[in-house]
Amino acid sequence: MSAAHGRQGEVPVVPVSPPLKDELDIVIPTIRNLDFLEMWRPFFQPYHLIIVQDGDPSKTIRVPEGFDYELYNRNDINRILGPKASCISFKDSACRCFGYMVSKKKYIYTIDDDCFVAKDPSGKDINALAQHIQSLLSPSTPHFFNTLYDPYREGADFVRGYPFSMREGVPTAVSHGLWLNIPDYDAPTQLVKPLERNTRYVDAVLTIPKGTLFPMCGMNLAFNRDLIGAAMYFGLMGDGQPIGRYDDMWAGWCCKVICDHLGLGVKTGLPYIFHSKASNPFVNLRKEYKGIYWQEDIIPFFQSVALPKDCTTVQRCYLELSKLVKEKLGPIDPYFLKLAEAMVTWIEAWDELNTPKSSPESAAVSKAPNGTPAKK
Amino acid sequence: MSAAHGRQGEVPVVPVSPPLKDELDIVIPTIRNLDFLEMWRPFFQPYHLIIVQDGDPSKTIRVPEGFDYELYNRNDINRILGPKASCISFKDSACRCFGYMVSKKKYIYTIDDDCFVAKDPSGKDINALAQHIQSLLSPSTPHFFNTLYDPYREGADFVRGYPFSMREGVPTAVSHGLWLNIPDYDAPTQLVKPLERNTRYVDAVLTIPKGTLFPMCGMNLAFNRDLIGAAMYFGLMGDGQPIGRYDDMWAGWCCKVICDHLGLGVKTGLPYIFHSKASNPFVNLRKEYKGIYWQEDIIPFFQSVALPKDCTTVQRCYLELSKLVKEKLGPIDPYFLKLAEAMVTWIEAWDELNTPKSSPESAAVSKAPNGTPAKK
Repeated sequence: MSAAHGRQGEVPVVPVSPPLKDELDIVIPTIRNLDFLEMWRPFFQPYHLIIVQDGDPSKTIRVPEGFDYELYNRNDINRILGPKASCISFKDSACRCFGYMVSKKKYIYTIDDDCFVAKDPSGKDINALAQHIQSLLSPSTPHFFNTLYDPYREGADFVRGYPFSMREGVPTAVSHGLWLNIPDYDAPTQLVKPLERNTRYVDAVLTIPKGTLFPMCGMNLAFNRDLIGAAMYFGLMGDGQPIGRYDDMWAGWCCKVICDHLGLGVKTGLPYIFHSKASNPFVNLRKEYKGIYWQEDIIPFFQSVALPKDCTTVQRCYLELSKLVKEKLGPIDPYFLKLAEAMVTWIEAWDELNTPKSSPESAAVSKAPNGTPAKK
Repeated sequence: MSAAHGRQGEVPVVPVSPPLKDELDIVIPTIRNLDFLEMWRPFFQPYHLIIVQDGDPSKTIRVPEGFDYELYNRNDINRILGPKASCISFKDSACRCFGYMVSKKKYIYTIDDDCFVAKDPSGKDINALAQHIQSLLSPSTPHFFNTLYDPYREGADFVRGYPFSMREGVPTAVSHGLWLNIPDYDAPTQLVKPLERNTRYVDAVLTIPKGTLFPMCGMNLAFNRDLIGAAMYFGLMGDGQPIGRYDDMWAGWCCKVICDHLGLGVKTGLPYIFHSKASNPFVNLRKEYKGIYWQEDIIPFFQSVALPKDCTTVQRCYLELSKLVKEKLGPIDPYFLKLAEAMVTWIEAWDELNTPKSSPESAAVSKAPNGTPAKK
């Protein structure tokens, strides 16, 4: 209604502010210059970026002109978290969850730096972020399956036989987006099908039903930080750890059982990004092989997790889960004992940086230690 | 490899037989001439049809030339089932389940007579039957969600994080197809959104996860009769009953809990048919209103059903379910006591007509009492 954005002498323009502009951070883990942002400029530029630099902290990461960002390297993480920095992975994109922790916003979108703008079947560029926001702002339906998919979408509704008492849905905590071109395959499948590309655009968003686990990929993922952020821990991966490429999976399994327990929704489907390059399958095999073996026990574990009724916050659920991990997965490998401890450390660090009252530590975080917020 | 289909003097042609030609019946409930079959001729003509004529048995139903069919009217049903005919609904498309019972084939496809051939986004006619067959012949994945949908489809696979031990899947019992144009809405939604049309072609088939119920529509439905047929009972609807338009829903809820118990899969999604005309929302409201009210209790009932381990056949599961219906839903309305009894009668009739050895009754069924199998 304000004409503030209209120039003098022109017809006043009703300003169209990008949705959630001041309530969402884009978190990007990287080891290289962020040239991929050029392609995303029309969609990302209004938002604040949190860049988590992995690997050698002395390296300078170039961010294209005009983006508003803060950047953290390993030195920053160590300085801010002190001994608790041990829960943040090094030399693995799992380090991105540090960005979730230091954000002060309600929503997070995280994307890998080898993901480009995809086109919809009509040839139009897909604004992945806008679609995620739409998914996060509309309810989920985890208690009953709607055969016409998202009932809140334009042109769709609940079908005959869908109980009316369930049509309000539940708040959406997670929006999991997909990938055209290079699919998110494990190393064995990459090796067997090196040329397979995902070309199928499935025009649907759907709620993953309560009680059902799914493989959550961190490449193109949005979530409500207030609702589930404290469980979005990407685990211990990479340097010094016996496993990699299970960071997002771990977070997904933890988040899903907690969302199910707390009555929150998890969606998957649209939006697509264009995944440009497959990681090396031989390297991936080395990172994954223990996970491929362990997941045969991890999945039944998560399928059988029952959280006590008095776990009414994400933090309490997560601490309870860490105990169960120690007890049930600890016997598989000492790694899970270490992981269970790191889960506790993560919650301690999260609570330190995210207390409602401003503590000296959390105040320190709001300064961008290594990045100069650029002017738009 | 046989050249039997090649004419003399011509290059021998390798015959391409339509899939499952001798193993699948198409069941159509109707009260009118089956002119809609003209449009389906290229896809349905090789298959055998079972037509269940509802309403006035003295009326003659015209079937287009060239289709191979048998037709049953109410007199036939009464004659074949005797007193057990009470379990088959009258003046409601629920009567179609009589066709499932008298079929001798392994697979059933059932379709409403106001459903036409839909077009895919490229403008090509969709062979709904062929797509259902493909879904029925490939496994389902009810124990873990695959984010790229059907992993057995060309160009797709299981994604990273999907346990390898689960990649064999389970046998598929049900393939639930969807509808373009008129969506399958209940009367209240029809009244509120009279002009809404489904134009979104979602290019996906997915398994409905274990433990999740869905609203199964009987308009465009295929199933493996050997695996789940005895539970595909469409209940007591229509004439003399307090409820209508919950026949397929009832069958879907029963089938889903039994499939979950027996480790069978239920898929939904492709194929689409073109649903040409909406039924009258005022009439539907009269048929539905008790169902809309009752389903608020029915759904929690089915969500909490736990079948005993010794129920290892569909029949035993179904009889157990009938006991639970009597016990748990009976208090809501005497209708459920009647329905529970009809469920038992249905199983008795099913077993009579479907014993491995040929009984006089089941032999009688294989004659088409009112239809002349036409020559192709």
